[in-house]
Amino acid sequence: MTVHLGPNKYGKAENRLVRVTRHGDRHELADLTVTSQLTGAFDESFTTGDNASIIATDTQKNTVFAFAKEYGVGAPEDFLALLASHFTTEFDWVTGGLWQAEVHPWERITVDGQPHDHSFRRTGSGTRLAAVQVSDGQQHVTGGVKDLVVLKSTGSEFHGFPRTRFTTLPEVTDRIMATEVTARWRYLPEAVSAGIDYDEVYASVVEVMLEQFATVHSLALQQTLFEMGRAAIELRPELAEVRFAMPNKHHFVVDLSPFDMTNENEVFIAADRPYGLIEGTVVRDGVEDAPAAWEHLPAFI
Amino acid sequence: MTVHLGPNKYGKAENRLVRVTRHGDRHELADLTVTSQLTGAFDESFTTGDNASIIATDTQKNTVFAFAKEYGVGAPEDFLALLASHFTTEFDWVTGGLWQAEVHPWERITVDGQPHDHSFRRTGSGTRLAAVQVSDGQQHVTGGVKDLVVLKSTGSEFHGFPRTRFTTLPEVTDRIMATEVTARWRYLPEAVSAGIDYDEVYASVVEVMLEQFATVHSLALQQTLFEMGRAAIELRPELAEVRFAMPNKHHFVVDLSPFDMTNENEVFIAADRPYGLIEGTVVRDGVEDAPAAWEHLPAFI
Amino acid sequence: MTVHLGPNKYGKAENRLVRVTRHGDRHELADLTVTSQLTGAFDESFTTGDNASIIATDTQKNTVFAFAKEYGVGAPEDFLALLASHFTTEFDWVTGGLWQAEVHPWERITVDGQPHDHSFRRTGSGTRLAAVQVSDGQQHVTGGVKDLVVLKSTGSEFHGFPRTRFTTLPEVTDRIMATEVTARWRYLPEAVSAGIDYDEVYASVVEVMLEQFATVHSLALQQTLFEMGRAAIELRPELAEVRFAMPNKHHFVVDLSPFDMTNENEVFIAADRPYGLIEGTVVRDGVEDAPAAWEHLPAFI
Amino acid sequence: MTVHLGPNKYGKAENRLVRVTRHGDRHELADLTVTSQLTGAFDESFTTGDNASIIATDTQKNTVFAFAKEYGVGAPEDFLALLASHFTTEFDWVTGGLWQAEVHPWERITVDGQPHDHSFRRTGSGTRLAAVQVSDGQQHVTGGVKDLVVLKSTGSEFHGFPRTRFTTLPEVTDRIMATEVTARWRYLPEAVSAGIDYDEVYASVVEVMLEQFATVHSLALQQTLFEMGRAAIELRPELAEVRFAMPNKHHFVVDLSPFDMTNENEVFIAADRPYGLIEGTVVRDGVEDAPAAWEHLPAFI
Repeated sequence: MTVHLGPNKYGKAENRLVRVTRHGDRHELADLTVTSQLTGAFDESFTTGDNASIIATDTQKNTVFAFAKEYGVGAPEDFLALLASHFTTEFDWVTGGLWQAEVHPWERITVDGQPHDHSFRRTGSGTRLAAVQVSDGQQHVTGGVKDLVVLKSTGSEFHGFPRTRFTTLPEVTDRIMATEVTARWRYLPEAVSAGIDYDEVYASVVEVMLEQFATVHSLALQQTLFEMGRAAIELRPELAEVRFAMPNKHHFVVDLSPFDMTNENEVFIAADRPYGLIEGTVVRDGVEDAPAAWEHLPAFI
Repeated sequence: MTVHLGPNKYGKAENRLVRVTRHGDRHELADLTVTSQLTGAFDESFTTGDNASIIATDTQKNTVFAFAKEYGVGAPEDFLALLASHFTTEFDWVTGGLWQAEVHPWERITVDGQPHDHSFRRTGSGTRLAAVQVSDGQQHVTGGVKDLVVLKSTGSEFHGFPRTRFTTLPEVTDRIMATEVTARWRYLPEAVSAGIDYDEVYASVVEVMLEQFATVHSLALQQTLFEMGRAAIELRPELAEVRFAMPNKHHFVVDLSPFDMTNENEVFIAADRPYGLIEGTVVRDGVEDAPAAWEHLPAFI
Repeated sequence: MTVHLGPNKYGKAENRLVRVTRHGDRHELADLTVTSQLTGAFDESFTTGDNASIIATDTQKNTVFAFAKEYGVGAPEDFLALLASHFTTEFDWVTGGLWQAEVHPWERITVDGQPHDHSFRRTGSGTRLAAVQVSDGQQHVTGGVKDLVVLKSTGSEFHGFPRTRFTTLPEVTDRIMATEVTARWRYLPEAVSAGIDYDEVYASVVEVMLEQFATVHSLALQQTLFEMGRAAIELRPELAEVRFAMPNKHHFVVDLSPFDMTNENEVFIAADRPYGLIEGTVVRDGVEDAPAAWEHLPAFI
Repeated sequence: MTVHLGPNKYGKAENRLVRVTRHGDRHELADLTVTSQLTGAFDESFTTGDNASIIATDTQKNTVFAFAKEYGVGAPEDFLALLASHFTTEFDWVTGGLWQAEVHPWERITVDGQPHDHSFRRTGSGTRLAAVQVSDGQQHVTGGVKDLVVLKSTGSEFHGFPRTRFTTLPEVTDRIMATEVTARWRYLPEAVSAGIDYDEVYASVVEVMLEQFATVHSLALQQTLFEMGRAAIELRPELAEVRFAMPNKHHFVVDLSPFDMTNENEVFIAADRPYGLIEGTVVRDGVEDAPAAWEHLPAFI
């Protein structure tokens, strides 16, 4: 044999779990897409096809649904931690894994001015993300958000960049700035141990990020990104760091001068591709790095 | 020549128009995807490549953006009607066409409890649709909505259907009902002539449809569809008919009995495909049919 | 009651059917997405929730899979015709419907220079379309193709169009022309009755369309569309008409002059949106119109 | 300041570059989606909005297109290496970055049995991937493929896995195995220095992977993955390691017994979600790890 097996993991992806909880006539709805993947001593399956150590992906799927019944689904981070604990304690050769959730938001339909007991509409931009990753005996918990599309029609400038051989972009002191925020934040291990109200953190982090996007007078999307991360960390002592991927969704001022018309940032064409792509991390001073927390997570750094 | 040209149209699709209107510091935002297509005497372009009658698709695009500057963008139906009128009066060989818009919804970001002047987040399920179609000297106006995802966790039954050789579906008296509503409604020509507050109609039609979805105790998705249409027509005298395409987004009760667990409509798996697909029209008694209003519109019947 | 039910249909959409046929060690693979929808006397389900006439969408799904076992899956048009015949004869209140298929293309993996017996790779652009529609006792059969992406790097001009107030597009005598062909062709009823080798027609129609795209020196995408349709109809006596939707996938010559570089149609940026959209029909002289054949089909006219 | 900036990069994503090269009447076509992102001393832009060090993403875009003119586009790895070298030598504060390409495959349209000079159709499953990453003065080159969809209708078993409380999956000795291969391979630095014919490596790696998929009698998708990687590394001395993400695209045998029909692996329903997801790395014995080569690449480990 001239080759060997390197890093690997496997599991069941995108289990579409809907959990209804009934409090009398009033129903609560949890709607998540859950992915479970295991790491551990699975080499034989790869190298010889011996599956004696393989917890079948179908078994992982069943576990997700059975746990939803047995324990309910509260904060997604808590639900994923239950799964992580189960797989890594029940099977001693399962040494770690990655459990991820996307939470699809619903709100109650309003009838006669009242939120309805059991009827909902899908709502909002902003899909909540959660992940629990276990490796080398450490558990890492991250929260996040994606698909959070925001735009400001002024309060954004971009200038002062080097003019090189290939630079044609004009400098501007007023422009539309639009982006689709993907952010993931890592929780401090000591905060996780102490217990976290993840739902409350999620709500307040998204709120403060939106506020920062709105109120920071922006000289660069980079600056806006940093201020969003800074504000989140300063607000919530549970956070160790926040990672962002923020496309610059360009809105170009349409040239109406051929038609003898002015266009003072009034009429824009929204472009699809290419787009700027800014990725960055904001870290609380003094916290330890945790590369293992990020290793298998999709997207950026 | 053994062949001839049949029905045709052409234009520029998916112009991504963003229009900012400034009232002092307070900005209004209109975000639309606009498609313009013309019908008329274009045969020579097809049969000989002579483009003397072709209003270039690029010209149609320019017109969309120039009109957004010149007239602003109010209700999408009004904006499309301006385009329709322009093309069919400016060029006598343009005898008709189809102008469509999708409206992407935004709401103001809240800062210190107040809606912000110029910062917005994309929101909501439910993309507003509008179309103006001109043919044979008639103008047809339709409004609509798509991507309106709704779910009720009880209040839905399905039984009494024939049991044939290929029937295995159990009858149920309680199930999740979920769908993604696409609806288009045709405005009565006389209401169009008299003037319509399209924004107000849109809001009230979506509201009453949501209410019906919530409150109708459903024996079939067909019944829910019909009641949604009926309520909209009864509420708004401007409407001639409503057409729906409503997938039945199946949520299957997960069988937990192998794990000695019950599952009383608590844990569901949401399926992607296949899905039921119910399409139907609700028509106000006494109104004249207008097949030309629907002829080129995407989706259903 | 102030409203009534208009046109409607319902069924099961996107049944993902894979059929393996074994000839000893050699396997044949059919991979289709099948949609079945019925029309008929279903009003009670809509208006009162009485489902006594509703052939459940689940039953329609079961029938698709059972028929694949019982009859195999040959040409998709033949398979859909079997379904159409079954539903409209087995249930007398089912008076018509629409049965559609998309065929996903596979080719055998080559091993040691030989096509493998049972291993395949998904291939090709170009998804085959088929539909059988029954209404008013008539059966209409259409074939088609979508996702057929083609590009020519020269042999395309565009000029001679009117220069209006909103025209800025330069005239060009050499450009890239690229499109993604969607075409549907209607088979002559008498050819259907006589029996058609649909697989052979499909292959030869796609081939001749590609040849026309390549060899017609194009003065407009309209002209290319027409010549593609003309050639198909002239080649195949089974065809009554062909309908096309062909986006003009713009490739813009990048302006390199700020860098003191020329660009003689060498470097292009491929744009996503907006795009031109040309739709047209080519009809064999002397054939009767059949609007019912097209009524419920997705896309164009 | 209680926070600081962590890892970051920025640039222009998804530049849709089409490069035509003319050899007399015969045209060559390169169609790539190129992403350029820089790392280096950009902190001021994030922390204060000072853009003096920011090579604008628009400048990066211009450079991509200008380089396509100046140097042509050969193997995507070579083209990306040119970009990497340019940015990291021209600007001393740019210390690294990630340059990625996806190559969209075209084949010539056949006319009269001959490949046409300047007309092409998009073809094949399998999008070629290339990336050049520079960090800490090291350049890492990776090739790859995605969207490579394959299926075998026999020659695959799955059994011998633990039966736990939540296991319901039956063991099978014959099943459909289908997957959509994403693979990335890292080139040995010494091979990169010596010069590599990347096009030839790509073709032969994909070919041998397909052969392995076809001919390995599979006891687990893990085993197939490993054998695909092993064969690629043994075939090509340029490769250090191969990383795979391979979903198990489930094809379920439809239960036809309610209709008194057998189904001996003849009729399947292809499922969308959930799906198995197997990720693994195959490494040449004795090569040094290079985590920096993989750090910013999308997908898996």
